[in-house]
Amino acid sequence: MSAKKLLEGVRVANVGVALFAESIAAQNAPVVQVDWRPPAGGDPEMIEHLNRLAVCDAANDDAIERLQAARPVWVDVGVAIEDVPGMGGRTLLHAGPPITWERMSGPLKGAMIGAALLEGWANDAKAAEKLCASGEISFEPCHHHSTVGPMAGVVSPSMPVSIIENRAPEELGGGGRAYCTLNEGLGKVLRYGAYSEDVLARLRWMSDELAPALRAALRSLPDGLDIKNVIARALQMGDEAHNRNVAATSTVARALMPYLAEAVNDTGVISRVAEFLAGNDHFFLNLAMPAAKASLDTMAGVEGCSLVYTMSRNGTDFGIRVAGLGDAWFTAPAKHPVGLFFPGYSQEDANPDIGDSAIMETLGVGGFAMAAAPAIVEFVGGSTAEAFQATNEMYGITWARSRDYTLPALDFAGVPTGIDVRQVIETGIYPVINTGIAHREPGVGQIGAGVLRAPEAPFQKAFEALVEKYSG
Amino acid sequence: MSAKKLLEGVRVANVGVALFAESIAAQNAPVVQVDWRPPAGGDPEMIEHLNRLAVCDAANDDAIERLQAARPVWVDVGVAIEDVPGMGGRTLLHAGPPITWERMSGPLKGAMIGAALLEGWANDAKAAEKLCASGEISFEPCHHHSTVGPMAGVVSPSMPVSIIENRAPEELGGGGRAYCTLNEGLGKVLRYGAYSEDVLARLRWMSDELAPALRAALRSLPDGLDIKNVIARALQMGDEAHNRNVAATSTVARALMPYLAEAVNDTGVISRVAEFLAGNDHFFLNLAMPAAKASLDTMAGVEGCSLVYTMSRNGTDFGIRVAGLGDAWFTAPAKHPVGLFFPGYSQEDANPDIGDSAIMETLGVGGFAMAAAPAIVEFVGGSTAEAFQATNEMYGITWARSRDYTLPALDFAGVPTGIDVRQVIETGIYPVINTGIAHREPGVGQIGAGVLRAPEAPFQKAFEALVEKYSG
Repeated sequence: MSAKKLLEGVRVANVGVALFAESIAAQNAPVVQVDWRPPAGGDPEMIEHLNRLAVCDAANDDAIERLQAARPVWVDVGVAIEDVPGMGGRTLLHAGPPITWERMSGPLKGAMIGAALLEGWANDAKAAEKLCASGEISFEPCHHHSTVGPMAGVVSPSMPVSIIENRAPEELGGGGRAYCTLNEGLGKVLRYGAYSEDVLARLRWMSDELAPALRAALRSLPDGLDIKNVIARALQMGDEAHNRNVAATSTVARALMPYLAEAVNDTGVISRVAEFLAGNDHFFLNLAMPAAKASLDTMAGVEGCSLVYTMSRNGTDFGIRVAGLGDAWFTAPAKHPVGLFFPGYSQEDANPDIGDSAIMETLGVGGFAMAAAPAIVEFVGGSTAEAFQATNEMYGITWARSRDYTLPALDFAGVPTGIDVRQVIETGIYPVINTGIAHREPGVGQIGAGVLRAPEAPFQKAFEALVEKYSG
Repeated sequence: MSAKKLLEGVRVANVGVALFAESIAAQNAPVVQVDWRPPAGGDPEMIEHLNRLAVCDAANDDAIERLQAARPVWVDVGVAIEDVPGMGGRTLLHAGPPITWERMSGPLKGAMIGAALLEGWANDAKAAEKLCASGEISFEPCHHHSTVGPMAGVVSPSMPVSIIENRAPEELGGGGRAYCTLNEGLGKVLRYGAYSEDVLARLRWMSDELAPALRAALRSLPDGLDIKNVIARALQMGDEAHNRNVAATSTVARALMPYLAEAVNDTGVISRVAEFLAGNDHFFLNLAMPAAKASLDTMAGVEGCSLVYTMSRNGTDFGIRVAGLGDAWFTAPAKHPVGLFFPGYSQEDANPDIGDSAIMETLGVGGFAMAAAPAIVEFVGGSTAEAFQATNEMYGITWARSRDYTLPALDFAGVPTGIDVRQVIETGIYPVINTGIAHREPGVGQIGAGVLRAPEAPFQKAFEALVEKYSG
C-alpha cells in the first residue's frame, strides 16, 4: 500500500516539526500530526504482507462507493417477531458477537432476565434467570438478524422495532433493511441491565402507545424520514451521533410532530409521545444505529475488501467483521471504558465495553467525529484539542472521507470512513469509540460515559485472515 | 484605559510574529492577532480623552453585572394594543431609530402599507400608502415601546406579541419586559416589505390560530420557557442566534409540543401549529431578540457607562444608544450588507441594512459568535477561519466575556459582550453584524443574507458625547 493510499482523505500530513502542523491547524485545515514510526513496527514480514495486500485497493474502492451511496430512511415501526428476519418465538437477541449464557456479563444477563419477564416467560427474576440458564432460550447476536441494539442490545419477540431501509440504487447495495428497538431513555433502563417494575412498565407503554403512534405518524409521511440527512445536519449541530444526539432528536421530533398530530386522534397520546421525545435526548441513537448498519452491510461480502463493516461488543468480547472475510467474527476480550461516572460510582463498578453502538464509529461518526461535538468533551472528559486530534488521527486508518457527513470545524471535511484493517496494522492506530458505561452487576443500569480504543487482537487476527485469503 | 482593560476577556493577545498566534490558535485557545497600531490612530487629543474616560470603568463593571445576571423567560403571548406599553390605536412601530414616512426605504414603506391593510385602515395598497403619507398614522420606533422587530420590525395594534420577562433579581435590573411579534418565516413576508394577499392571510392565521395555541401552551408551562438557556444551548449546536436559529427553534418546538398537545383540544390546530414550527427555522429569532433587549435594557441609564445597549437600523439610518447617555440616538446612514443573493437578485437590488436584529450582536452573539456557527459561513459567504477571526476581533472591543453564552470551538470561552464605545474608538475595530438582505423596493421581500460592519460615525458621535459628559 502506498503512502498516498494510506493518507487518502487527509489533506495534509505532517511528519516532523510540530509547529508547522499547528500553523496549518490554526487555519482549520484537517491535519494529521504523525509521530513517524516505521510501518507495521518495522517487521519485514509484515511489510511484505502489507505490500501484497495492495490487491485490496480496488475492492475497497468498490465497497466504499456502496457505503457512500447508502441512503438510510426510517420507513416504519414494526414488531420484532413479525418483522425481524429469522426472529424465533423463544429467541432473545443481544449485542456483540455470539456468546453463551455462562459467559455473559452482569448487565447482559440483567437485560435477558428483564426481557424474559417482559415476555411473561417467568414470574420473577429468579425464575427468569433459571430459564435463561436452562438452555430453552436461544441467544443470538442482533447482527445475525439485520438488527443492532445499544448496550445489552436485547430484542425480545414482542418488542417494537424501527425499520430502516437503504434507498440507494440496487446496483450499489440498496434495498437492504436494518432493525432496532426504540430508545428507552437514560438511567435505569433494560439495555443497561435494569429490570425493575418501572423499567418493564415503561417498555409496555412503549409497545402499547408509543410504537403505534410513531407507526401512524411515519406511515402518513409521504416518503419516510431520511436518517442520512438528519445525521448530516446533526453533525453541523454539535452531535457526534453516538454519545450526543440532542440535535438529531430535536430535529426528528420537530419533523414528526405535525404528522403525529394529524395521524393520532387523541391529544392525550400526542402529548405523552411528545413528552417522551422531549425528555429523551438519545431517542435518535436507535435510529442512527440501524441507519449505520443498513449502510455498512452493503460492503459485507465484497471480495478482496479489507474494510471493517462491523465493530461490536457483548460486554465480554469485542468483535469485528471485515467485508472481504464474510460473516466471520474476529474477537478479543472487551476493554473497560475510561470516562466520567455518575455520583456514587467509580471505575471499578464499570462493566467491560458493551453494545452494538460501535457501529457508529464503524460508519465514521461517534468517536471518529469528535471534532463535530466539542461539547461532548464535557461528557466523556477531555479538551477541545483532544476532540480535534481524535478525528485527525482516524483519517490515518480510514479509506475515504464521507461525502455527506461533514465536519464544520474542519472546514466541512468529510468524516473519516471505511476502517481499513491494513492501515490499522500499518500505523498501529486503533479506532476510538465513545460509549456509555454500564454497571457490572445486573439490574443497576448506566453509571457513566466514556471513551476507549478498540482492542488490538481482532484487527491482528483479521489481518492474518486477509493475508491468508488474499496474499497468495 | 489600560491595556489590561482593553484586552479583558482575551486569554492571549499576540502582537508581532503571526506564527506564535497560529500555534496557540491550533490548540483552540482564543487568541487575537493584532496588527499593532497606535491607539486612536495616534491622535494625542483623542488619547487624552481616552485616558480621562477611565472614569467609566467602574460604571461598566456595574452595568455588565446586570447584563450577565439577566435571565429572559418567555412568559406569555399577548396582543400589541393590549400589552405593548404606550401602543396607540393608529400607531405603527418600526425598526431602528426614529424616521419620517418621507425618509423610509422601500421595504419599510412596504411593511407599513401591509400593516395598514392588515388593520383594515385601507382597502388597497394605494389607499394605504396615501394614508401613511397623510400624517394620520404615528410612526414610532419599536425600541421606544420596549419592543424589537426583525427587518422592517413593523408592529400594528392587532398583532400578537411574545412577552419576555427578565427574571433576574430586582437589584440587578430584573422584572423588565420586552415584546416582539411572532416570526412569519422566510421569503415573501411583511417584515421584508411584502404585503400580497398570501402574506396578509398568513398574518391573520397567526393571530387567529397560532398565537392562541402558543398562549395556551405557554400558560400551561409551570414557569415559562427560559430563553437564556435555549440561546446558551443553541450556541453549542451551531446557531449564532441571528442568521442561524435552527437548533434553538427545534429545541423550543420540542419543549413546547407536549404542553401544546395538552392545552389545545383540537388535533387539527396542533398539527398546523407543529407544521408551522417545523417549517420555519427562524421562529426562534423573534424570541431571541426580545430576550436580548430585556437583558441589555438593564444597562440603560447607568451613569458613566460607556457600553452600547442598542444597535439598530431602520433601512435608512443606523443608530446606537449608550448606557451612560440615556435615550439619545447616535446615527449615520445605514450601509449595504455584502453577502449571498437568491437566484435572480444581486447587490444592486439590496436595501441598506435594516432591522432591530442587531440587538443580537449588541448582546454578543450573531456576528460576534460566528465561531459558534461555522455552518453559517455557507449562508453569508466566507471561511471557517474567518468565522473564528470575527469572534476573536470582537473581544478587542467588548468589556467582558459572557458567563452563560459560550463557544465550544474556542474551548467554551464566553462570547464577547458589552460593546465599549471607548474600545471601538481606541482600536478602530467596528462591530460585525450578520443580517438578512431586503429588496430595496416595497412588496418584494428577502433576497439574500450577508454580513457587514457597523458604520463609524455613530460611535464617534457617542464618544464625543461621553467626553462632553464625563471627561470634565
